[in-house]
Amino acid sequence: MIRLSKFPFKTLKSIPNWSDNKSTWILLQAGFIRQTMAWVYTYTTLWLRVLRKIEKIVREEMDNYGAFETLMPALSPKELWEKTGRWDSIDVFFHVPAANNKEYGLNSTHEEVVTPLMKEFIQSYKDLPTCVYQIQNKFRNEKRAKSGILRWREFLMKDAYSFHSSDEDFINYYEWMKDVYLRIFDRLGLWEDTVIALADWWTFTDKFSHEFQVKLDIWEDDIYICKSCGLGHNKEVVDEESWFICAECKSKEYDLEKASEIWNIFPLETKFTKAFGVEYLDENNKMQTPKMWCYGIWVSRAMGIVAEKYATENWIKWPENIAPAKYYIAIIWEENLGKAEEIIKKLNLDKDEIILDDRFSRKIGFGQKMADADLLWIPNKIVISKKTLENNSYELNWELIKI
Amino acid sequence: MIRLSKFPFKTLKSIPNWSDNKSTWILLQAGFIRQTMAWVYTYTTLWLRVLRKIEKIVREEMDNYGAFETLMPALSPKELWEKTGRWDSIDVFFHVPAANNKEYGLNSTHEEVVTPLMKEFIQSYKDLPTCVYQIQNKFRNEKRAKSGILRWREFLMKDAYSFHSSDEDFINYYEWMKDVYLRIFDRLGLWEDTVIALADWWTFTDKFSHEFQVKLDIWEDDIYICKSCGLGHNKEVVDEESWFICAECKSKEYDLEKASEIWNIFPLETKFTKAFGVEYLDENNKMQTPKMWCYGIWVSRAMGIVAEKYATENWIKWPENIAPAKYYIAIIWEENLGKAEEIIKKLNLDKDEIILDDRFSRKIGFGQKMADADLLWIPNKIVISKKTLENNSYELNWELIKI
Repeated sequence: MIRLSKFPFKTLKSIPNWSDNKSTWILLQAGFIRQTMAWVYTYTTLWLRVLRKIEKIVREEMDNYGAFETLMPALSPKELWEKTGRWDSIDVFFHVPAANNKEYGLNSTHEEVVTPLMKEFIQSYKDLPTCVYQIQNKFRNEKRAKSGILRWREFLMKDAYSFHSSDEDFINYYEWMKDVYLRIFDRLGLWEDTVIALADWWTFTDKFSHEFQVKLDIWEDDIYICKSCGLGHNKEVVDEESWFICAECKSKEYDLEKASEIWNIFPLETKFTKAFGVEYLDENNKMQTPKMWCYGIWVSRAMGIVAEKYATENWIKWPENIAPAKYYIAIIWEENLGKAEEIIKKLNLDKDEIILDDRFSRKIGFGQKMADADLLWIPNKIVISKKTLENNSYELNWELIKI
Repeated sequence: MIRLSKFPFKTLKSIPNWSDNKSTWILLQAGFIRQTMAWVYTYTTLWLRVLRKIEKIVREEMDNYGAFETLMPALSPKELWEKTGRWDSIDVFFHVPAANNKEYGLNSTHEEVVTPLMKEFIQSYKDLPTCVYQIQNKFRNEKRAKSGILRWREFLMKDAYSFHSSDEDFINYYEWMKDVYLRIFDRLGLWEDTVIALADWWTFTDKFSHEFQVKLDIWEDDIYICKSCGLGHNKEVVDEESWFICAECKSKEYDLEKASEIWNIFPLETKFTKAFGVEYLDENNKMQTPKMWCYGIWVSRAMGIVAEKYATENWIKWPENIAPAKYYIAIIWEENLGKAEEIIKKLNLDKDEIILDDRFSRKIGFGQKMADADLLWIPNKIVISKKTLENNSYELNWELIKI
């Protein structure tokens, strides 16, 4: 239970500024975030709760799917990246000078860590397929300024890596993973605005890869959506000199939409498993190199996208299951605090889901309390006042309820 | 529920090596960790579960205490560190070259981030005391090689920062915080071997500060424990040229013990609040600078210390509340799998706490299954076999139980 009388991260009376990204300013007004430097934010208590709820949804769905969670380090040795030739080829990669004349990578991705890890555990065709994932901080040495909180130098990502004996095996896995992702985006309230798109920006493959893009006015990709079959095409894969032709159905009709990438999937083929010598014994006792795929969800970006999508002029109407709390309980008069706490106990609500407004200064009256409940967007507003107590009741979303 | 038939992180038949740190090798044998580089480890699924349980204990106790969780970034701008003169003065600080000729800090501590954050929210004496914390990754550019997994270049830390109007106010807070820490260490099974010690290694204060040290043969501090009053003294604060004299009771008798620091507390006084211009209006309408304290718990090191303290020759006897799972369910014959799953459903156990041993190859017989249950140290071993099913029962820790 958060007691607002003790809570340091107060709301601001007005929106501090305005940009192309309206959710950022609401988050600032609500005290959810503060900028530490360009595209690097501190999360305060309530925003962190939203993040943890999103993280939990992703974790539950990945675990149900049969992927196994790990936690890989943010730092990694230069030698691993030299084996794949990527030490100098990823333009957003941070190189960190270290003691004893060493240099570490501050990872923007983890193929160079997960592949040598799995080398030990993949020995037989019986060990395949297998899929591991982590929800972990990634770092990108970004040069370009972009809007608001979506592109971060430091962000939370779910990255999964699967290993397969054949393309057929992978295709089964992929269809299954699509369902997992669908459930995740459904639970985040993002499904209806999501479009699958072809993309081509990976650092080493020249094959098409898939992205899930959420339509958003503000940012960051231009997506050509085929009017006939609905397949999206990232601007990068559309030859701008010629006319658009859908890669799937060959139609030339399209809608152009702004969108933001929220997950992607890349065929890594055997690039990494070969570089690190991952091999398994197949059914015929022959050594083979497994194929590898990776699947990302930008968890903290997903949170930013949800915020932007559900932002109105005045607040962010969170989907209820990821709202910062379920109950906002406003006690109007200090003399009713004891009685109100008894009622709260009786209601037997989940304590972690309660924000208790027990501020009683003259400046913070009923209006301010309800304005904050709206700004934080807590779905269930409970009011306990002299009047409700006289009626042996409390108000839940403006309806009188008997105790 | 983890199904071992699909689980990639298999145990090893024997301990791979031996060092002064026996828990590290057991963790390697059990498949809990793998080294990515010196003092940087990847956590696999089961070790991560232990970490999350420890994290949850710390979070619950801090929240109950009335501290508010935040999440600060790992990267921070150079300018913040220049304000306090610490950019070049912390010997383990990573400096990260970035795009556009910038340099970032990869934080080993967060005073330079939390103080400007709280500056906005501390305006009146009514806003004090206040305490915020985070459980977050820290980085240290370590030069010295030390044993096993205790000292990490990258590690999870709980760091709390409190702000006060007076020393008296802080002392109340400190006593309260000591109780919180006591409960945490009790729940981690570490209390009885913990000693409070005086230390003096902070980068800017020349006052004594407190550490909680856990007695451990392997590492890393030498603690002089006063035979008379029990107060510990880090070797750093004992003048080695002269005889030991207890700072508290002036006794000269001591025991010398090896120990490992698990938490510390530092008086930051007004060093940071002054540097960042944090000020509040006191009861008499005068501007004042709040005093600041910080409280750390090395969360991932606490995990390493628990592992070492509870390590026997063959396994780590986790305290039950932080064991990687509560139930290890071994099904002996494949033909009983369906029936066994029915029983598991009936038992209505917490699914997240089950490891199901459904491996049925000839290599993995009853003996291997029980050996793995011991090596992973799962407190409740359930066996479902032909024999138990004939008796309409299962075995729980070698006792037959009717269904």
